[in-house]
Amino acid sequence: MVIQEIRVTPVAFRDPPLLNAAGVHEPWALRTVVEVVTDDGHSGLGETYGDLAHLDKVRECAKALVGLDVHHTHEMYARISAIVGDVVGDLHGLTGASSKEKSVDRVFSPFEVAALDIRGKAANVPVCDLLGGRVRDAVPYSAYLFYKWAGHPDAEPDRFGTALDPDGLVAQAALLIEEYGFRSIKLKGGVFPPDREIAAIRALHAAFPGVPLRLDPNTAWTVATSVRVARELDGVLQYLEDPAPEISGMARVARESGARLATNMCVVTPEHLPQALAQEAIQVLLLDHHYWGGLARSAQVAALCGTFGLELSMHSNSHLGISLAAMTHLAAATPNLTYACDTHTPWQDGQDVVKPGALRFVDGAVPVPPGPGLGVELDRDALAAMHEQYLACGLTARDDLGYMRRFQPDFTVRRAHW
Amino acid sequence: MVIQEIRVTPVAFRDPPLLNAAGVHEPWALRTVVEVVTDDGHSGLGETYGDLAHLDKVRECAKALVGLDVHHTHEMYARISAIVGDVVGDLHGLTGASSKEKSVDRVFSPFEVAALDIRGKAANVPVCDLLGGRVRDAVPYSAYLFYKWAGHPDAEPDRFGTALDPDGLVAQAALLIEEYGFRSIKLKGGVFPPDREIAAIRALHAAFPGVPLRLDPNTAWTVATSVRVARELDGVLQYLEDPAPEISGMARVARESGARLATNMCVVTPEHLPQALAQEAIQVLLLDHHYWGGLARSAQVAALCGTFGLELSMHSNSHLGISLAAMTHLAAATPNLTYACDTHTPWQDGQDVVKPGALRFVDGAVPVPPGPGLGVELDRDALAAMHEQYLACGLTARDDLGYMRRFQPDFTVRRAHW
Ligand SMILES: [Mg+2]
Ligand SMILES: [Mg+2]
Repeated sequence: MVIQEIRVTPVAFRDPPLLNAAGVHEPWALRTVVEVVTDDGHSGLGETYGDLAHLDKVRECAKALVGLDVHHTHEMYARISAIVGDVVGDLHGLTGASSKEKSVDRVFSPFEVAALDIRGKAANVPVCDLLGGRVRDAVPYSAYLFYKWAGHPDAEPDRFGTALDPDGLVAQAALLIEEYGFRSIKLKGGVFPPDREIAAIRALHAAFPGVPLRLDPNTAWTVATSVRVARELDGVLQYLEDPAPEISGMARVARESGARLATNMCVVTPEHLPQALAQEAIQVLLLDHHYWGGLARSAQVAALCGTFGLELSMHSNSHLGISLAAMTHLAAATPNLTYACDTHTPWQDGQDVVKPGALRFVDGAVPVPPGPGLGVELDRDALAAMHEQYLACGLTARDDLGYMRRFQPDFTVRRAHW
Repeated sequence: MVIQEIRVTPVAFRDPPLLNAAGVHEPWALRTVVEVVTDDGHSGLGETYGDLAHLDKVRECAKALVGLDVHHTHEMYARISAIVGDVVGDLHGLTGASSKEKSVDRVFSPFEVAALDIRGKAANVPVCDLLGGRVRDAVPYSAYLFYKWAGHPDAEPDRFGTALDPDGLVAQAALLIEEYGFRSIKLKGGVFPPDREIAAIRALHAAFPGVPLRLDPNTAWTVATSVRVARELDGVLQYLEDPAPEISGMARVARESGARLATNMCVVTPEHLPQALAQEAIQVLLLDHHYWGGLARSAQVAALCGTFGLELSMHSNSHLGISLAAMTHLAAATPNLTYACDTHTPWQDGQDVVKPGALRFVDGAVPVPPGPGLGVELDRDALAAMHEQYLACGLTARDDLGYMRRFQPDFTVRRAHW
């Protein structure tokens, strides 16, 4: 099964004005779809970031992988590592600082996922069976709440409504739970001063008693604030995600508050793990195969977490169905997955590059797609339309900050801000 | 590919009187051959220890795996874990203390290897391709020297000759290098007082200049002795293997001598890794898929070693060709394998349960067998004959100590002895 051709297609899809510590989501979210075709007629799918610097590297690497057997992922990684050479862009900063290692893992990921898709199809087994087989038939996801405006400033309000206070968030949670059946809730914080976000969490706790809650301010707080919030929400939060910057900062928060801390910002490559473990900086690692180097490497990191007693959940950026399928296969085959995973799927609001039917939510969980490989099929009309949207929208990189500054010129990224 | 039948066959093969800190090899080495057969006519091979307590658990678990898809190794592991329940025997003690975790990993291993053999055959790819693909076409092994008697006391001398002093070891090394082309040398120590073994290493260093040397006394020394020997052999040894017992002891040796230490005794399950890393007790981990839970779990441990900067080599007990094939596939697909692997193959002296031809040594390295799966085929006549030998020899567990005491009644296991 030798790679004969790789098609790399950037796409854009509509995204609501979701607020975070770095600004606000632009009207279009960018992704890149990777299709790998082998000499024996198999094809496989991968999905990754759409930022131009990254896209350019993905395109460059795609050329270098032609002629390679889809099983030879060590060699694939080596070739990509040789090409990437140095840090590729910083992307959006919300998944921690970049590094050469992380850049390689990020570029490698969609090719590895596509290779597994092909191997699964050829063996007539789902991708999770190439990762040790499923330990759960469906993967639970959490309702991912965002503070948001009614709509983009130059457009009509979207159907999700305004959420700038506890009532708005409770209504948003009710809508997502109604539509998807989620059984846990995550709030993206770092948008308002901490006491307003504490109030929001308390309102959610009152409105959805017994439903696990998480709060993720994306390092918007100082260590002292983080400790204070963690203490105030003791017993209310399932875990607190990235309250303060850096491994050393998280270690202080963990030590002083005793809270369970999760991260997708201070531990984002293997090289961060030894120091984070030595400092006991985190208790939960949020896996993300998009920057942990694909599914098999993520499974290795998951095993390492098991060895060191770290709990596991899964991180998400705006994504489409190829990624949801990949995340679901990985999570289904991860014995020590501890918590419901994050997903932006509801904000995608039905837009997708895969044909409908394979991916669905039942009680907040996605059943492992039954077909071979990833179990999803490319919708070529949708791909073409979303590629046209990419060309037309004019965006080439995610820029939550720049977009926010159009409306609040003095806005700065909230890092250890409060 | 559902498991329909599993055949478990204990075998015995002739073994020379190789000396170690626990006694001397008996005239017969025991192994167990596992054949897994699926409903679609595929079959796969695994090889494991032959000790009776272990064999009984392997047999018990084999029954519980019928009906399972060969991809579902997480479920396979869970079923075996439920059956093993507690520590299964201590085996021979030369691979560290036993534990429930290690017992499960040990019982699981041959089934997982056989499952990979089947998956490789079905996909028409070598097993290394299920582990990310080869990063080397041939796997280097080291000449594994032993102090030995001329032959077993009640039998004729064997063709390897006596090796009880430096000259004998140099002659043994010359023979193994002549026949196999090895380019590094390991000496099993812990047999004579340390100064005699230092002299042996110096003689090997003089006779084979530039050839990397290792010494493994199997924890026969105290910390103080270990530090002294490490200093005396500074610059002569590639690494020093298990000089003193326990993670804490190894940590002291490492700290006080600055020597590079390897282990297959103090770090033998995932649960040992965090403490060993925290104490900087070792610099080299000797992988062994027989007790690290098969090939995929060993690959995960290898990845963890990469993350934490541990170097890698591979441990060996007396084994047959199924294991040599499995070791070779794993090592071929391990990017961060640092040193030539150990193997007992020369002491097997041509006896095997696999048909000849697939496994060969070229310049001390075994080329990855080209066929699908493990690339080796069971020789049913040899299997039957070696099973007859198992029944006839009367041994049911490896007992180097008991055998030694027949000739030296006051012999005790050398643990922190010198
Ligand atoms: Mg986060
Ligand atoms: Mg050893």
